[in-house]
Amino acid sequence: MNSFGRLFRVSIYGESHGNSVGVLIDGCPAGLFLAEKDFETDLRRRRSGAKGTTPRIEFDIPHFMSGIFNNTTTGAPINIQFENINTRSVDYLELRDLPRPGHADFVATHKFGGFEDYRGSGHFSGRLTLGLVTAGVIAKRLLGEIHISAKLVEVGGMTDVESAVDRAIEENESIGGIVECRVSKVPVGLGEPFFDSVESLISHIIFSIPAIKAIEFGSGFQAARMKGSEHNDNIINMDGTTETNNAGGINGGLSNGNDIVFRVAVKPASSTSQPQNTLNIKTEEIEELVVEGRHDKCIALRVPPVVEGAVAIVLADLMMMEGKIKRIYLQEDE
Amino acid sequence: MNSFGRLFRVSIYGESHGNSVGVLIDGCPAGLFLAEKDFETDLRRRRSGAKGTTPRIEFDIPHFMSGIFNNTTTGAPINIQFENINTRSVDYLELRDLPRPGHADFVATHKFGGFEDYRGSGHFSGRLTLGLVTAGVIAKRLLGEIHISAKLVEVGGMTDVESAVDRAIEENESIGGIVECRVSKVPVGLGEPFFDSVESLISHIIFSIPAIKAIEFGSGFQAARMKGSEHNDNIINMDGTTETNNAGGINGGLSNGNDIVFRVAVKPASSTSQPQNTLNIKTEEIEELVVEGRHDKCIALRVPPVVEGAVAIVLADLMMMEGKIKRIYLQEDE
Amino acid sequence: MNSFGRLFRVSIYGESHGNSVGVLIDGCPAGLFLAEKDFETDLRRRRSGAKGTTPRIEFDIPHFMSGIFNNTTTGAPINIQFENINTRSVDYLELRDLPRPGHADFVATHKFGGFEDYRGSGHFSGRLTLGLVTAGVIAKRLLGEIHISAKLVEVGGMTDVESAVDRAIEENESIGGIVECRVSKVPVGLGEPFFDSVESLISHIIFSIPAIKAIEFGSGFQAARMKGSEHNDNIINMDGTTETNNAGGINGGLSNGNDIVFRVAVKPASSTSQPQNTLNIKTEEIEELVVEGRHDKCIALRVPPVVEGAVAIVLADLMMMEGKIKRIYLQEDE
Amino acid sequence: MNSFGRLFRVSIYGESHGNSVGVLIDGCPAGLFLAEKDFETDLRRRRSGAKGTTPRIEFDIPHFMSGIFNNTTTGAPINIQFENINTRSVDYLELRDLPRPGHADFVATHKFGGFEDYRGSGHFSGRLTLGLVTAGVIAKRLLGEIHISAKLVEVGGMTDVESAVDRAIEENESIGGIVECRVSKVPVGLGEPFFDSVESLISHIIFSIPAIKAIEFGSGFQAARMKGSEHNDNIINMDGTTETNNAGGINGGLSNGNDIVFRVAVKPASSTSQPQNTLNIKTEEIEELVVEGRHDKCIALRVPPVVEGAVAIVLADLMMMEGKIKRIYLQEDE
Repeated sequence: MNSFGRLFRVSIYGESHGNSVGVLIDGCPAGLFLAEKDFETDLRRRRSGAKGTTPRIEFDIPHFMSGIFNNTTTGAPINIQFENINTRSVDYLELRDLPRPGHADFVATHKFGGFEDYRGSGHFSGRLTLGLVTAGVIAKRLLGEIHISAKLVEVGGMTDVESAVDRAIEENESIGGIVECRVSKVPVGLGEPFFDSVESLISHIIFSIPAIKAIEFGSGFQAARMKGSEHNDNIINMDGTTETNNAGGINGGLSNGNDIVFRVAVKPASSTSQPQNTLNIKTEEIEELVVEGRHDKCIALRVPPVVEGAVAIVLADLMMMEGKIKRIYLQEDE
Repeated sequence: MNSFGRLFRVSIYGESHGNSVGVLIDGCPAGLFLAEKDFETDLRRRRSGAKGTTPRIEFDIPHFMSGIFNNTTTGAPINIQFENINTRSVDYLELRDLPRPGHADFVATHKFGGFEDYRGSGHFSGRLTLGLVTAGVIAKRLLGEIHISAKLVEVGGMTDVESAVDRAIEENESIGGIVECRVSKVPVGLGEPFFDSVESLISHIIFSIPAIKAIEFGSGFQAARMKGSEHNDNIINMDGTTETNNAGGINGGLSNGNDIVFRVAVKPASSTSQPQNTLNIKTEEIEELVVEGRHDKCIALRVPPVVEGAVAIVLADLMMMEGKIKRIYLQEDE
Repeated sequence: MNSFGRLFRVSIYGESHGNSVGVLIDGCPAGLFLAEKDFETDLRRRRSGAKGTTPRIEFDIPHFMSGIFNNTTTGAPINIQFENINTRSVDYLELRDLPRPGHADFVATHKFGGFEDYRGSGHFSGRLTLGLVTAGVIAKRLLGEIHISAKLVEVGGMTDVESAVDRAIEENESIGGIVECRVSKVPVGLGEPFFDSVESLISHIIFSIPAIKAIEFGSGFQAARMKGSEHNDNIINMDGTTETNNAGGINGGLSNGNDIVFRVAVKPASSTSQPQNTLNIKTEEIEELVVEGRHDKCIALRVPPVVEGAVAIVLADLMMMEGKIKRIYLQEDE
Repeated sequence: MNSFGRLFRVSIYGESHGNSVGVLIDGCPAGLFLAEKDFETDLRRRRSGAKGTTPRIEFDIPHFMSGIFNNTTTGAPINIQFENINTRSVDYLELRDLPRPGHADFVATHKFGGFEDYRGSGHFSGRLTLGLVTAGVIAKRLLGEIHISAKLVEVGGMTDVESAVDRAIEENESIGGIVECRVSKVPVGLGEPFFDSVESLISHIIFSIPAIKAIEFGSGFQAARMKGSEHNDNIINMDGTTETNNAGGINGGLSNGNDIVFRVAVKPASSTSQPQNTLNIKTEEIEELVVEGRHDKCIALRVPPVVEGAVAIVLADLMMMEGKIKRIYLQEDE
């Protein structure tokens, strides 16, 4: 349910305004050197603070609670925990009867009988992605020369990110975006033909990231409009290199040695300062609602490191299944 | 690997030109009446024969090998098997050194050391989707009033399917398409916020279907270009009904009571009669290849019942996890 | 539910008097040469026919339904199926209202609402162990020099097997026994400290074998009466060899390089020709019952190859998790 | 690996002398009221302090890190953490080259390349059982009227526990024991015939408890010496009640409505104050070793609440699989 992976196994826990959020990683090889600073870059890329992101700033210090001894992984489960400090839960108390449009409020109350921690979207919060980024940092280290890079290629329908964010601030609206991810130096043959194809596993974890609503590999939706001879990628090299990469690096569900390429759609954050209608579940009347609180104008800005972390988790697991990552990590591998 | 599901668990086996293909279904409730004719409609919809599909015709008789007694499920694992009869493997022998572009030939040989059954794409063949349709028929029965309907909404870039197919035949080319699936009467609250969101599970199984390269829920990629106040679906009814359905029936990874709606892109079949270049892995030289054999001009025509079956499997599993499908099936439920 | 294993994954299906029983094996490396005759020895050891076993004789021909091509594993799921031929189901029709003591009749009817295939104990039958032996033959091949040997060390309370069986026949009673299994040349470090200890995994699969009611590793129950300095095995060699083997080759849940040794108790077959009392679930009255049909006097005689197969499955899975069995099998490994 | 369960899923983390030990519980129903004091009784029963147990005393305060809001479960993963305070790691530094007999030192170093946290047996420590007891407290609450009770029935070969402990102290030796567990009011039909029998699941989790080396259900090893007509339990009541309970409440792997009864053997703690021989892995010479540090003379004294917790976890999971525990807990159930 809240776990992912077969051999490199990641479990997520925590709530936006609870004591902590964190991640439990089971199956990580022993012997990997890990310091707090190894997490800095990706945590900073995910953190808010830039124009267009929420004014709630968390310092996101990773606390190693288990599985790391003398700054080295031991082979036992790794628990990395983050405190929630900068919470203002009072914002949410008054919303209990007014499920915010686009948010999980209505479904969560239904599923959990009203017992859910509703503060700041609780367990549904984007804050939970800290765990993906954290596990992703470890996974990236295990992946050696495999290189993962995600970036925003479109925001609010525009390619000029800064202008798009400025306009969103001006219009007091949230906007979405498209993130493209490219993975290079992937060995041929990762994945399984049925049920655990590379596309299956990547999309599974990617749709755990709040606000993602679409994914396409290689030429994606455009493939539906191509002819077979246009779409097929001709193999031109014994290592599997193809002339084109319409398949996005995946044939028959298996990596084919070319870059894995996919794009995901990030919807605009559900919290917008515009007035909206919703149903008061006490009075059963429609009411106008203005969502107060501190929100991201453009959550997509913070998504790339999360996408990278998610894909790294999948690939580390697949590499372990192929025996390409050993249970004892040798530093000289790096 | 070749299994999917937690409580309603489906395993696929077989090869295109081997003895059989089939499906093992574990966790199906006891007491469900099942006759061969229950499978007819969906198997026929998947079968070839129509204009634009392969001339290889299989009769696809489902053989109940276990788990069904007196035409009723017993609660034990159900093995349903299909024979392969109409095979012409000789077509494939001469292709051993020439990995067909777009196919899994190259990656399969790499992954399985050349021991894979290469005839007709072996375990990678679209013929394996028989298992999805078969398990899907059972899952649909368990789902009661939940209704799943997939249809082609675009073929070869056109909405007029017949014209598109005619043109493909004329041009001797394969073409792709877009399939839209709509699921109605889904209870609120299926799915799990992290890692087992409804989108995660549906996309996981959908990408097991050969030739699928993209999926989008609700407004999908278009969501990335919308503003928050445009994209948010206002709740207007106590059952969760929303004014619009940009979310595709899913908030925070959970079903929200509206129709689940998603679209998938089907690439053109990799087998095309056009000459293509590929690498001869013996001589290491580029050669021209014309793929003989019997192929689908438009595999997308056969995909809708497969998509339906796949989604039915996911939903049956989620319904069982919520205790909404019991372990003993009562016929009066229908 | 009816599956076991993480990377070498075994699923069992079938019923005693249905069409077939069989096993689906997912994750077996490609490239392993397999012929029908490879299964002969262990299938024969499991088969009935000897004095003290049931007069129902099945020829147990393994049919390769998938995953094997040119007598070699392909890396795709392997389905091996056995037909049921020599069935006499009429014996069981009259027992529907009289749950046989010691059998699963009562619990099966309760769990599956009376829809279970009751003929010859259906899915609960010892005939299902064919799948364990079959998967075990494959697993043993993968294990290379690791050697597994199980034998009866006690029957009906006696060490002289023949006498015990003679007495059972004379007394027209069923008897139990104790099987000891010894695994040699196990590498150090298989297993996981928590939840997937070697003892946990072996006992999990062993208790799937019908009629097993107890298991002990090393000095087992006797350990509870020893002092620490008596029970501890002193390490005397750099490969982990210990002076004694009270631990049965397992410390902290991990293999320690010494022989893994365990014993299991096999209860007497529940079918006995002696008259017994049971409850007629129609009349709710106690009735005397004499179980007719063809039964084993001493099922324990047939258990050793099943125990071996079960343990081989566990070890193959653990060896794959450690990367000690590769996904492509090299014949020279043997 | 370090997780157990299908729907009620328990993951263990931590080390004896690290920051913390704890447990992550996924799948617990929402709405269960939980206060720190609910854990007191079982944590106290497990805690040291009594005659014969280690002088290391930990206060074992359960910290709710996630999944509990307003002292009520929310349906999100529950992380409960315990600090390690009373650690004296200096005792272990000098043992690095001398693997203690009976302990996991040798195998852990081999498996984890020497990177394991060796202090106080690290992740292999009995301290990790805190997580089982903690998850067990929650599971017991979910089980309603099902009642689980484990007790020591034999210590150091004697039934008089106090005398046995006195003698162990006098002899400066560690001793083992036998724990019997009885579960009453179990519904008929829990468990699955193949691979997930009640015996399989109970033994799987029980062998996670350090020092357990044997388990027997019902008449257990004694069954191997009984005749069929002696061992079979005659059904005398429509609820499944049997005259005797040689089966230990389980037929065909399924609960039969009678008490589930099993016994486990606890070996003497490996740490004994007696001098022992072991191999110095640096010098490769045999050396005499006296294990200093604070140890349990009779670890079996602390095992009963751990066995209860472990069984409660299994039963909660099985009850959820049968739909007998709902995803929203109603307090009136209690």
